[in-house]
Amino acid sequence: MSRPFLAITIGDPAGIGPVLGARAAGSAELRGACRPVLVGDASVVRSVCPSRAARVHPLADLDEYRDSPRILNVLHVPHPDIRRLRMGRPQRTGGESAALAIRTAVALALQRRVAAVVTGPVSKGSLRMAGLPYAGHTEMLAALCGVRRVEMLMAADRLMALLVTRHIPLSKVPASLSMSRLFSTIRLVDRWLKERGLAARPRWGVCGLNPHAGDGGLLGREEERVVAPALRKLRSAGLSLEGPLPADAAWAAHAGGHYTLLACLYHDQAMVPLKSLFPRRVVNITAGLPFARTSPGHGTAYDLAATARGRALADPAATLEAARWALRLARTL
Amino acid sequence: MSRPFLAITIGDPAGIGPVLGARAAGSAELRGACRPVLVGDASVVRSVCPSRAARVHPLADLDEYRDSPRILNVLHVPHPDIRRLRMGRPQRTGGESAALAIRTAVALALQRRVAAVVTGPVSKGSLRMAGLPYAGHTEMLAALCGVRRVEMLMAADRLMALLVTRHIPLSKVPASLSMSRLFSTIRLVDRWLKERGLAARPRWGVCGLNPHAGDGGLLGREEERVVAPALRKLRSAGLSLEGPLPADAAWAAHAGGHYTLLACLYHDQAMVPLKSLFPRRVVNITAGLPFARTSPGHGTAYDLAATARGRALADPAATLEAARWALRLARTL
Repeated sequence: MSRPFLAITIGDPAGIGPVLGARAAGSAELRGACRPVLVGDASVVRSVCPSRAARVHPLADLDEYRDSPRILNVLHVPHPDIRRLRMGRPQRTGGESAALAIRTAVALALQRRVAAVVTGPVSKGSLRMAGLPYAGHTEMLAALCGVRRVEMLMAADRLMALLVTRHIPLSKVPASLSMSRLFSTIRLVDRWLKERGLAARPRWGVCGLNPHAGDGGLLGREEERVVAPALRKLRSAGLSLEGPLPADAAWAAHAGGHYTLLACLYHDQAMVPLKSLFPRRVVNITAGLPFARTSPGHGTAYDLAATARGRALADPAATLEAARWALRLARTL
Repeated sequence: MSRPFLAITIGDPAGIGPVLGARAAGSAELRGACRPVLVGDASVVRSVCPSRAARVHPLADLDEYRDSPRILNVLHVPHPDIRRLRMGRPQRTGGESAALAIRTAVALALQRRVAAVVTGPVSKGSLRMAGLPYAGHTEMLAALCGVRRVEMLMAADRLMALLVTRHIPLSKVPASLSMSRLFSTIRLVDRWLKERGLAARPRWGVCGLNPHAGDGGLLGREEERVVAPALRKLRSAGLSLEGPLPADAAWAAHAGGHYTLLACLYHDQAMVPLKSLFPRRVVNITAGLPFARTSPGHGTAYDLAATARGRALADPAATLEAARWALRLARTL
């Protein structure tokens, strides 16, 4: 069996994505596990990659892939104004070019010509300037796939966390939690974990919202009013769950390998421990798409992307980790 | 100079405190750094310590301390009903006995006869049954010392975090944050850090409340309305601060040694990363008392305390870490 194709979109061409994608695609580890193909405007990749690195080979189609450590295969998605791109800032051209690359990668994944997709970081500002009606990557991917509902997971090393709520102010979190939301979110991700072969029967930990998971109601009642009833219903549906757990104890147990994944009720309940444990390796995973999709858990890093020195310092660890997770979820690792 | 005395209260006698205190006090590391003295009912310590360990030596006064690795010095604070104590549950006798030990240790510390105090875990339930009007250790210590305001820090290894709000429901956190509270809390702890010799000019990181520290107002406005103005005022007062920072990036930087300490706006913003990084070594520190006071960051663990097998398994790592911090803050390490 030949190694599968892995699509890596370069993300916002004015950001750090092109150089990180190129570095990850050139790594011996990744080349050993798959045939990595960058997706984006090849002229951008060429301009940010130092000349001593592999030579950029623009492809019109995957058939033209050349399997050599000295070749960087880029599925060329040209943008007419790319020469006017200014590195290190949000702009319309960047948003348009990033969106073209995502559409191309999604089409390849839906046709099953690539095993999985790693998406480089995009800028919400650039997408907005390009007139795209998506809050971010995740929403755009769901729309392109015609999927009504997706869920967002974060991972690093072997630790996965589900974000039950995502990018909302902390003050809105308590009212955003409902029994039905918890139930449907966890059930969707439980099924997805099985489909993706990550676990025959996932062992879930579920965090509470309040200090000490409410301490029997003394420090908040969301655990008994919302979380515990949802977990009872999920257990009746056959899921294996512990919770609501004090979030600090839950993370200590999760770091010790106790759960398949941990459900976190708000953004920082997942992000803070993951970045504390693995500062450079956090990965974003979308559950519910018809293919495996991951992304490095950082942004466009415009400050680094703006200068050659900054780009030289950029660390591809999170992009590589995203590629590992993508291949694992595509059941090729 | 002789080694300083370190008082270690046994906490709730029905909990895990007596056995952890005995184990920590018997360690070669601690005995090398100080003269550890347990404070509590000596009969409890004797009953929970295996006979092959050091012999319990009850003291009426510190003068009777005997410096030998085979002796466990216990400043005896008798309780008339101690024989009726049932291990592993909250009860009036436990609360009363714990409170007596705390009062004794505080008196010794205020007289400067001990360099610092490590307090064993108490049960809020037992304290309540004993009719004590304190929400917990921290409040009781402040009252006994006649101090109006103390602050709570958590630490592990070399990482310290300030809890700007403590044991309140998450839904109450946004309204509990005010400019004046942030300002006075951080200023108090900054002074305390200098007094305790931890830093000549502390380098502070200050977390934001919302995902991405509000992302310029898109994900919440507390950063611009409350946190940023407080930090401007603190900078004018000469403090060195970075923030409001996205909490995940702040913790990654803190774990990398970037700050003297990190101000966290709510309980789990501090506890989750500390317990993820150092599951068994988290320590509670009170800032603002006239002496150094620390405590292991866990509870009475009644389930373990109830059986000889459970007590044999109990890990004194957090108590030892609390002792290290106490000696460091007493400027004897």
